[in-house]
Amino acid sequence: MANQEDQFKKVISHAKEYGYVFQSSEIYDGLSAVYDYAQNGAQLKKNIREYWWKAMVQMHENIVGIDASIFMHPTTWKASGHVDAFNDPLIDNKDSKKRYRADVLIEDYVGKLDTKIEKEVKKAAKRFGDSFDKEQFIATNPRVLGYKEKGDAILKRMGQSLEKEDLADVKALIEELEIACPLSGSKNWTDVKQFNLMFGTKLGASAESAMDLYLRPETAQGIFVNFLNVQKTGRMKIPFGIAQTGKAFRNEIVARQFIFRMREFEQMEMQFFVKPGTQKEWYEQWKETRLKWHLSLGMGEDNYRFHDHEKLAHYADAASDIEFRFPFGFKELEGIHSRTDFDLKSHEEFSGKKLRYFDHEDNESYIPYVVETSIGLDRMFLAVFSNSLEEEALENNTTRTVLKLPAVLAPTKAAVFPLVKKDGLPEIAREIIEDLKWDFDVLYDEKDAVGKRYRRQDAAGTPFCITVDHDTKEDNTVTIRHRDTMEQKRVPISELKSIIAAEVSVKNWLQKM
Amino acid sequence: MANQEDQFKKVISHAKEYGYVFQSSEIYDGLSAVYDYAQNGAQLKKNIREYWWKAMVQMHENIVGIDASIFMHPTTWKASGHVDAFNDPLIDNKDSKKRYRADVLIEDYVGKLDTKIEKEVKKAAKRFGDSFDKEQFIATNPRVLGYKEKGDAILKRMGQSLEKEDLADVKALIEELEIACPLSGSKNWTDVKQFNLMFGTKLGASAESAMDLYLRPETAQGIFVNFLNVQKTGRMKIPFGIAQTGKAFRNEIVARQFIFRMREFEQMEMQFFVKPGTQKEWYEQWKETRLKWHLSLGMGEDNYRFHDHEKLAHYADAASDIEFRFPFGFKELEGIHSRTDFDLKSHEEFSGKKLRYFDHEDNESYIPYVVETSIGLDRMFLAVFSNSLEEEALENNTTRTVLKLPAVLAPTKAAVFPLVKKDGLPEIAREIIEDLKWDFDVLYDEKDAVGKRYRRQDAAGTPFCITVDHDTKEDNTVTIRHRDTMEQKRVPISELKSIIAAEVSVKNWLQKM
Repeated sequence: MANQEDQFKKVISHAKEYGYVFQSSEIYDGLSAVYDYAQNGAQLKKNIREYWWKAMVQMHENIVGIDASIFMHPTTWKASGHVDAFNDPLIDNKDSKKRYRADVLIEDYVGKLDTKIEKEVKKAAKRFGDSFDKEQFIATNPRVLGYKEKGDAILKRMGQSLEKEDLADVKALIEELEIACPLSGSKNWTDVKQFNLMFGTKLGASAESAMDLYLRPETAQGIFVNFLNVQKTGRMKIPFGIAQTGKAFRNEIVARQFIFRMREFEQMEMQFFVKPGTQKEWYEQWKETRLKWHLSLGMGEDNYRFHDHEKLAHYADAASDIEFRFPFGFKELEGIHSRTDFDLKSHEEFSGKKLRYFDHEDNESYIPYVVETSIGLDRMFLAVFSNSLEEEALENNTTRTVLKLPAVLAPTKAAVFPLVKKDGLPEIAREIIEDLKWDFDVLYDEKDAVGKRYRRQDAAGTPFCITVDHDTKEDNTVTIRHRDTMEQKRVPISELKSIIAAEVSVKNWLQKM
Repeated sequence: MANQEDQFKKVISHAKEYGYVFQSSEIYDGLSAVYDYAQNGAQLKKNIREYWWKAMVQMHENIVGIDASIFMHPTTWKASGHVDAFNDPLIDNKDSKKRYRADVLIEDYVGKLDTKIEKEVKKAAKRFGDSFDKEQFIATNPRVLGYKEKGDAILKRMGQSLEKEDLADVKALIEELEIACPLSGSKNWTDVKQFNLMFGTKLGASAESAMDLYLRPETAQGIFVNFLNVQKTGRMKIPFGIAQTGKAFRNEIVARQFIFRMREFEQMEMQFFVKPGTQKEWYEQWKETRLKWHLSLGMGEDNYRFHDHEKLAHYADAASDIEFRFPFGFKELEGIHSRTDFDLKSHEEFSGKKLRYFDHEDNESYIPYVVETSIGLDRMFLAVFSNSLEEEALENNTTRTVLKLPAVLAPTKAAVFPLVKKDGLPEIAREIIEDLKWDFDVLYDEKDAVGKRYRRQDAAGTPFCITVDHDTKEDNTVTIRHRDTMEQKRVPISELKSIIAAEVSVKNWLQKM
């Protein structure tokens, strides 16, 4: 919908204007699907990472964190299945020489059918007014129903062909639908081929001794290969978890939607090792615990939903996504997967080394089962940022732009202003900063009228503004203004620290879980 | 010296045994010069990063942080000079097919001369006893002096040839010295060639549209290309700084000394933008400020020294290292460089975009000069870890292994023990943990005698051990034991939080700067 698109464009331009996200290497006209986090974005990203780490590692006696390297031994990716199966089906247009994801071409075709349906639905909704029932309309209108049934049939056939690796049929489908290259308009297509999504590089200088490496496409394997070393040196008892945050890389052909799908991205993953047979309980428990973590940020219960997978990956016996309402609709934010013993077993086979846990209570040794929680830090950033951005109508018929970030995540906790640039007020404002900066990220601003400064901090997401005025010199009090309510209160300088701490401390927010 | 080597080996094995650093992909027999941070190491690394970030970003009103991507537009590396000049001189042995760094082969040759000198020195020292003067002995003993003069001459010639890019003379030197391949013993060498240290990869799937990318060899360029966007959206006034932590990659031919020189490593860099002409003052000030940061950790003033560069890189007008006493001697830990306007100017040229700052006070626009502080996070980790590891002789003629990490950096702040596994003591210990875990990383341990548990935490670097005993049930007091002094005190449970906070809070440590 146009409205969604507009809203999303606003998010992207606000992210740039207020120092959250810049296109990478912008001075060189950018690098496709790669972004840099700017001064406020870096801080927001860091605060999200910290909020996750505290909840997962510090708060759990039986979860520890690691920090494995991006480079791993290449056999890792054979064992994990990524060398053989981490592919996208690609097709080239012979005239434009442009390459596409075959499945995306087909999905876009179906998307056009959906657009036609939406158009008819809108027209009808206008005609029928309040009594309009969308489902009923589609079911009873032959033309619209035709679009829908055609789309469903296409997606079903594509899904089956991809699953059977019948790439010839995927090409046949493209030809039958007469899909043309968006660039050249030509229908002159090559065969569909699988393309591996891992980035390759070479370690070592000698042609003979150079080793083909991959940039890790997921952080999980760094946990699996270290599982036994961590368990032994950490004297961990099952059930226990290993958590990790870090970069991963995927050579996506169609990377889009801003920072939602990037070629370089950051994951926050936790692998929880359990006794075989208990994985279903733990899977359910982690679904619940992770949702609670999201809800603790107060971004609206209605914005989350579970999507349980019907089609499971080769390594999983259960999987669910926590979906979030992004500007472009509900999409995966986090995955909770019951990965069975697939990974550890496979690493045993490929390494020839035992990766067993000896259970002293049951006096038996086994390969643990694994329940994973995996969230994209960049997606979480986008969820928080887009959900917080509001155009708010004010009582005086004006509007303000306000970024209602959860205060615990906000890059700057408080901005301190002298009312005017004289009479000793800047000096007092700086004294307050000198005191607060030991505990919080704070900033000083003396430019423009105070009202304009308030608006600037509203749009930047700063929860508190503190103003020093002439009364401050008399009674050591200042005005503290809250971003969301715009309420102003007169408080003693000595109370600032505790007022701010109460609203921004990680501890207080985590207690809402 | 053998003693240093032994000490270093102890550091490496202790790092593995206590869950600090594992060889990467160990189950696949490792990946050369790549390491993973284990459960305690990840936490120590994270705490060091945080200690740096707070000192540099949170405490400085005019420094902001960013988080740029590892992938950058390839022209970045042409502008920075890395494509043309970031090379090592390599030579292949034609018989073994093994590749070497030509300069390292020559340095190893000189190293052997040094070993001969050391041998003679040792013998003489034994003979002469207390009256022995090493310098005088070398100067007056013709054979030993010959070794020294030969070594000096070789290094001088190599340095000059490399500077002039006279690679033929580097080869000639290897042949004149009759250096043989350590593997095959053959002296059959190829020519010396320059090899670029950047890792390459390809972005995008299509052969036609694929783009050659590099993994960034330094984080600094991510700051330079974003300089103007940060300055404008952050409304920064010169002088101001942009800080960043993140991974960088160098395809080192000879990577060694554990985590000191890795192929994948993490930097903590800050680029400070100043008015041209003021760079020398800022350079001096940052040298001082950064040394203070190091000294605040209390690892011994004698372990640091400045090494001012005589030979400057092409972009610098002054440069100094803060060297630290590693187990293998004084080596670079951090660099402070006055980088002039080299980088910004070069990016202006290559991008065709202006990267000027408009100075409202002086009403003029200019390319700022840059003073950089750049520290390797992994090196800092090694400095802290190796310096903290002690074999301490105790009064009862036994020894203990203790890892005297600065408490602010320690992975676990306190371990809580029930004296025995019954009588309700474990429950009380867990209650204490439930209370402390909101503020600190804590752990629970009930296994083995308390003395053994103390030793385990000493070796792991935990500053406090808290023991719950039968008296606790009567009076709500526990024993708190300090890692370094081994002193034990009886304190009320209600005071634990403030006792621990006083010793571990970042704020209290930074106040020592």
